[in-house]
Amino acid sequence: MKDTGFETLAEGKSQMFSELYSQHFDGIQFNEANTDAYEPIYYFLKTGGKRIRPLLVLLSCDAFGQQVNKALNPAFGIELFHNFTLIHDDIMDKAAIRRGRATLHQKYSEGTAILAGDFLLILAYRYLAKVDPEHLIAILETFNTAATQIIEGQVMDASFEKREFVNEEEYLEMIKYKTSVLLAASLKIGSIIGGASDMDQKNIYTFGINLGLSFQLKDDWLDVYGDKSLGKRIGGDILQNKKTYLFNKAYNLSNQAQRTHLANLVQSEDEDYKISQTIDIYDQVGVGAETERYMNVLYDQALESLDKVSISSEAKADLQYFAHRIYHREY
Amino acid sequence: MKDTGFETLAEGKSQMFSELYSQHFDGIQFNEANTDAYEPIYYFLKTGGKRIRPLLVLLSCDAFGQQVNKALNPAFGIELFHNFTLIHDDIMDKAAIRRGRATLHQKYSEGTAILAGDFLLILAYRYLAKVDPEHLIAILETFNTAATQIIEGQVMDASFEKREFVNEEEYLEMIKYKTSVLLAASLKIGSIIGGASDMDQKNIYTFGINLGLSFQLKDDWLDVYGDKSLGKRIGGDILQNKKTYLFNKAYNLSNQAQRTHLANLVQSEDEDYKISQTIDIYDQVGVGAETERYMNVLYDQALESLDKVSISSEAKADLQYFAHRIYHREY
Repeated sequence: MKDTGFETLAEGKSQMFSELYSQHFDGIQFNEANTDAYEPIYYFLKTGGKRIRPLLVLLSCDAFGQQVNKALNPAFGIELFHNFTLIHDDIMDKAAIRRGRATLHQKYSEGTAILAGDFLLILAYRYLAKVDPEHLIAILETFNTAATQIIEGQVMDASFEKREFVNEEEYLEMIKYKTSVLLAASLKIGSIIGGASDMDQKNIYTFGINLGLSFQLKDDWLDVYGDKSLGKRIGGDILQNKKTYLFNKAYNLSNQAQRTHLANLVQSEDEDYKISQTIDIYDQVGVGAETERYMNVLYDQALESLDKVSISSEAKADLQYFAHRIYHREY
Repeated sequence: MKDTGFETLAEGKSQMFSELYSQHFDGIQFNEANTDAYEPIYYFLKTGGKRIRPLLVLLSCDAFGQQVNKALNPAFGIELFHNFTLIHDDIMDKAAIRRGRATLHQKYSEGTAILAGDFLLILAYRYLAKVDPEHLIAILETFNTAATQIIEGQVMDASFEKREFVNEEEYLEMIKYKTSVLLAASLKIGSIIGGASDMDQKNIYTFGINLGLSFQLKDDWLDVYGDKSLGKRIGGDILQNKKTYLFNKAYNLSNQAQRTHLANLVQSEDEDYKISQTIDIYDQVGVGAETERYMNVLYDQALESLDKVSISSEAKADLQYFAHRIYHREY
């Protein structure tokens, strides 16, 4: 997709906004006297990340014809919020590594990581509020709704782990809350600052929801059917007994014998056996092809919603290009 | 103090606002479908608490002549924030009991308690934003500043625990951040909704700061010199090696022999010996009387700041009465 001049232009915009964002926030100092409180935050923010959400804010604001510098602070606020969720998730998952470096509770202590996450959530609100007063209420409302749903999604996710099986509808609701709403809220907040109509705000939000869903389904699919040459171990989710879209769908499509086998495999300690046998069942019931089909449907639905937004075709191309890169893991 | 008609009037106001607040929020339902996420929050909120902060919001709003129903939602937001800090503090302190019931991480799990705290912080912002748009920016700014300082205070407190000794200035800054600023912000937010001038906002804020400082110093003092008949064990802070105002002041006033003894007592496993010997040193250097003197100075300074606020003498009496009850632990 990179051979046409059209995509080069779109890539240029992502690149340009990415640099603008970095310029503003890479060397950020929160300007407070109490350095102890900020050190863990700087450590974590410097681990990087793909900065997908702030770029969505800026691209969306730009698409509606406003100067993106009006959206830089809320873009940063959303990235701070995203980092808050990662820090607290890592504590709950007892994860040791994030972005190739020690997680915060691992490097410091659990107490420090809890406080650092809390702090980022408060700082997120501080930066989010740095907008034109005329947009403050709408932005806070959009953000608060998303933040509430994200916590609800995390609670759902935790409760699913304890269950044998989750139905498709429940699973899609969980990943919508846990993953999609922050992408969608980023786009909507950018559009509010850009001066979008209610209908356009709604359509660009739906674009984000479906993009997020397709992204997460593909994530589940890549764990089993991804390119082994990328270095990530195939079947990591299976080893961790994650209730992925594939697992739930396979369970649903299985006959009694297959279900019993799947349930036994969850208990298995033999890693290679567990992975190969689970994938065997996935193949028997055809869950790989079914997931691939549905994630592409969702991706197409995302692009259809984007198409309905009344912005220039150049602006649409910028957002399409960014969606393409997210979906195809080029970010 | 309860014999004069004047105080009865003031008590009536606190009582009335307390009931108004309870009416609105005792049976609150956050109206969301995902009950799993809200259950731990309801459990914790139902453990009660003294509701000092929401009452300060309402009394302050009323003092400036505005209907207190305009301040009910932000008052609730501040109480939610306070409960968020308690839940996360309890995890970090590994506390088992809060308000006579199991702490949240004890009853559910640590992950659930982390998420419930996060959720309350987000809900705090939701309720705080339910105000007249004309006051939104000022209220958010006041609240964000307080929230930032509270986290900084908690980080200071945690780092002090690791040190042998903390000087008086550092200690006062820590308790100002950890305890006072939320009381002060409650009063200021009430005053903003009440339409107070900048100068009045500043004075009522200072009233809250000094009231909080005097409250905390008295808390430290009561641990050693409090009425044993109240059931609380004398010397609890000493047993937990807390760097209280008394400990730091005693360390500062001690000669070399006393300092060495104090440092050895920190390591002591004999509880009765540890408490009695530490109090002996406190008595030798006169730290009890000195703390009592200074906490009363701070309380008087609080009342002086209140006196400067341009509100009716009845409104002042309401706030004085409330301060009196807080300071004398009648709440």
